[in-house]
Amino acid sequence: MNLTNASQEQLQNLEQTLAAEFSTIKAKNLSLDLTRGKPSAEQVSLSDSLDGILKGNYTSKSGIDVRNYGGLEGIPEARELGASILGVPASNVLAGGNSSLTLMHQVMTVAHIFGLNGPESAWNKQSSVKFLCPVPGYDRHFSVCEHLGIEMVTVPMTSTGPDMDKVEEMLKADSSIKGMWCVPKYSNPTGVIYSDETVERIAQLGKIAGDGFRVMWDNAYAIHDLTDNPVQLANIFEACAKAGTEDSVIQFASTSKITHAGSGVAFVAASDANLAGFKKSLGFITIGPDKVNQLRHVNFFAEEGSLNAHMKKHAEIIKPRFASVLKHLEEAFGDNDLGAWESAEGGYFISFDTRPGLAQEVVDMADEAGVKLTPAGATFPYGNDPQDSNIRIAPTVPTVEQVDEAMQVFVLCVKLASVRQALKNA
Amino acid sequence: MNLTNASQEQLQNLEQTLAAEFSTIKAKNLSLDLTRGKPSAEQVSLSDSLDGILKGNYTSKSGIDVRNYGGLEGIPEARELGASILGVPASNVLAGGNSSLTLMHQVMTVAHIFGLNGPESAWNKQSSVKFLCPVPGYDRHFSVCEHLGIEMVTVPMTSTGPDMDKVEEMLKADSSIKGMWCVPKYSNPTGVIYSDETVERIAQLGKIAGDGFRVMWDNAYAIHDLTDNPVQLANIFEACAKAGTEDSVIQFASTSKITHAGSGVAFVAASDANLAGFKKSLGFITIGPDKVNQLRHVNFFAEEGSLNAHMKKHAEIIKPRFASVLKHLEEAFGDNDLGAWESAEGGYFISFDTRPGLAQEVVDMADEAGVKLTPAGATFPYGNDPQDSNIRIAPTVPTVEQVDEAMQVFVLCVKLASVRQALKNA
Repeated sequence: MNLTNASQEQLQNLEQTLAAEFSTIKAKNLSLDLTRGKPSAEQVSLSDSLDGILKGNYTSKSGIDVRNYGGLEGIPEARELGASILGVPASNVLAGGNSSLTLMHQVMTVAHIFGLNGPESAWNKQSSVKFLCPVPGYDRHFSVCEHLGIEMVTVPMTSTGPDMDKVEEMLKADSSIKGMWCVPKYSNPTGVIYSDETVERIAQLGKIAGDGFRVMWDNAYAIHDLTDNPVQLANIFEACAKAGTEDSVIQFASTSKITHAGSGVAFVAASDANLAGFKKSLGFITIGPDKVNQLRHVNFFAEEGSLNAHMKKHAEIIKPRFASVLKHLEEAFGDNDLGAWESAEGGYFISFDTRPGLAQEVVDMADEAGVKLTPAGATFPYGNDPQDSNIRIAPTVPTVEQVDEAMQVFVLCVKLASVRQALKNA
Repeated sequence: MNLTNASQEQLQNLEQTLAAEFSTIKAKNLSLDLTRGKPSAEQVSLSDSLDGILKGNYTSKSGIDVRNYGGLEGIPEARELGASILGVPASNVLAGGNSSLTLMHQVMTVAHIFGLNGPESAWNKQSSVKFLCPVPGYDRHFSVCEHLGIEMVTVPMTSTGPDMDKVEEMLKADSSIKGMWCVPKYSNPTGVIYSDETVERIAQLGKIAGDGFRVMWDNAYAIHDLTDNPVQLANIFEACAKAGTEDSVIQFASTSKITHAGSGVAFVAASDANLAGFKKSLGFITIGPDKVNQLRHVNFFAEEGSLNAHMKKHAEIIKPRFASVLKHLEEAFGDNDLGAWESAEGGYFISFDTRPGLAQEVVDMADEAGVKLTPAGATFPYGNDPQDSNIRIAPTVPTVEQVDEAMQVFVLCVKLASVRQALKNA
């Protein structure tokens, strides 16, 4: 389907055909959902042996009775699990509670209000505080900034990560920029893996920006590969150590999309100085994390290689869903310019761009036909997609058949909205 | 032992005898610890069937698959558990993560920085923000205020709760006072249960203070009785409803000293308006609590009456330890004025007051003899006990024999310090 050279009459005919198809589909009263970046019931079932795994032994190998208070950093074995996921020394990892979002909010709050390096280092001592947000990005990152009153400045995502020329330029021009959100592997939502060059340039940012600058490196999909030989993400911790900028990046991960979502273990990895500064504030907030659950997770992945084997099982469940999305997109838009997307090889999302001005309309039409999509604009700060073109597709929760059905609706809505727009502009 | 009418010579002889005793004990190289308000290994063992209790069934009675994201308020059954502990409707309870301290810090942060009732209601919009702290009290309450930069103003604890005449007077005189910390049952550390009159007067405080005033009602020992017929704490939620001050009190509890400490479920109970305001901010901080662990706790106490029966087992373990402390205090100081204490009938602490000016010395001497005590001053804001007389005794962790041994050292240190002070003042 190519609209560029279509005549007015061709467009009208096409509109009628597609509108009729839409009516037929609407009559089916579908109820499908492509909104949620969460694991399916089949996926969480992979970890059901977690409950009961301790078999009455509540003492960690390191000799800690996990049933009692204490241990702000988590048990050593859990810190090692986080270290293996993030590729850093265990001594630089804090194993926390069930939510990496909470850890991110806490780190941002400490940096902004209490100061990661003493009260005087708090960002809010300055009249203006800004954060770089590669777009499209993750709405919950943006809402943390919104909650704290930190102004968001967007920078475009490319196929190799954030547009680093722009990032460097902006940092040089504006010292009120205090950090940047990053999902470096299978970026939410574009699925991009940051290139080695991007990682290296991010590690250098601490030299351009001032002392207070912190990249929030949310490696949520660090081991969530869908292929057997995934592209390796360069190690930012090592790159920063080499550049002497170790304080400029703080990393996060969790087991939420590994074991049970919302009932796992979250991790923060940071330089010695950052970790010390964070722990100073964290000690006012909690006596320590749920160590029993940490021990469960440690036992669950105790066997060498079991973490990898476990992630392969997730991949087997997710792959056909991703394949279905990509097949529909390829068939419908592979030979035309009605949409653009990346072929994600991991993570939880496929990001789709309509022609400018159509995302909201497509989401509304799909909703009318019984297919829920993530709200248009959600992948941009303040919910404002200036092009009104980005839609995040999250296919993990529905069955393969449901994904197939929902994607038929989706491509139809994109086509119909595009044709109507072309008619209007003709 | 009565020092009041003792001659200089009698005091000197006494000092020599006690000093010799002290040397003998020091030579034993003891290593005992009365510092920690935490359950013993025997106590936490009572709940070891928690792990594995789900037997593969991860769906709550209310139909929630607890293995996935969502549900900011916790599962309905966990909210009911919190409601039964705090004596409020389940709809006014939020069941959270593993730490009531975290919930308290979050509520205080929201009230102070983000506003429980919209941004304009944030305490920090005012130039001066103060909090009433009944003393002696709980150091971790005080440190939350310190972290947030809220000035603490002390008010004395009496045998019926905070000195309410003083509280009312201070509130009338100073509108910058935004709240008060309370541990209403088995108060930390004095063990006092607030009288019905105190509860009623606290429920009326919202009428004296302004809209922003919030009592932080930490009912940490709500069901932690050591006697069969405990004194009942009046219901503050109902008293506030009657007084029309339901927004002025926010309640907290947790299962930390019921099941596994630091791996349980924490609760906040509040008016509809407070809960809505809190949830608005909480939604930026987390996607939801660990619902799997909530379901474990619900199942653990599913049988009618099992919570009470469980708490009786705790009481059986704690009682002899409390009895040992009280026996030693009674024997040593029952007939003189060297010390004062309450006979706590629940909770985790016995609060002891030396003659003024001796707490630090007693703590140091005990340490020299191998008995660790909570640092002198810890029960006061900024660690500053103006009388230098309060010492918090926490006897739950050591064995009964260890408590006995440690208390022999303790009373000896108090006697010796008192005699030396008397000699100096003679």
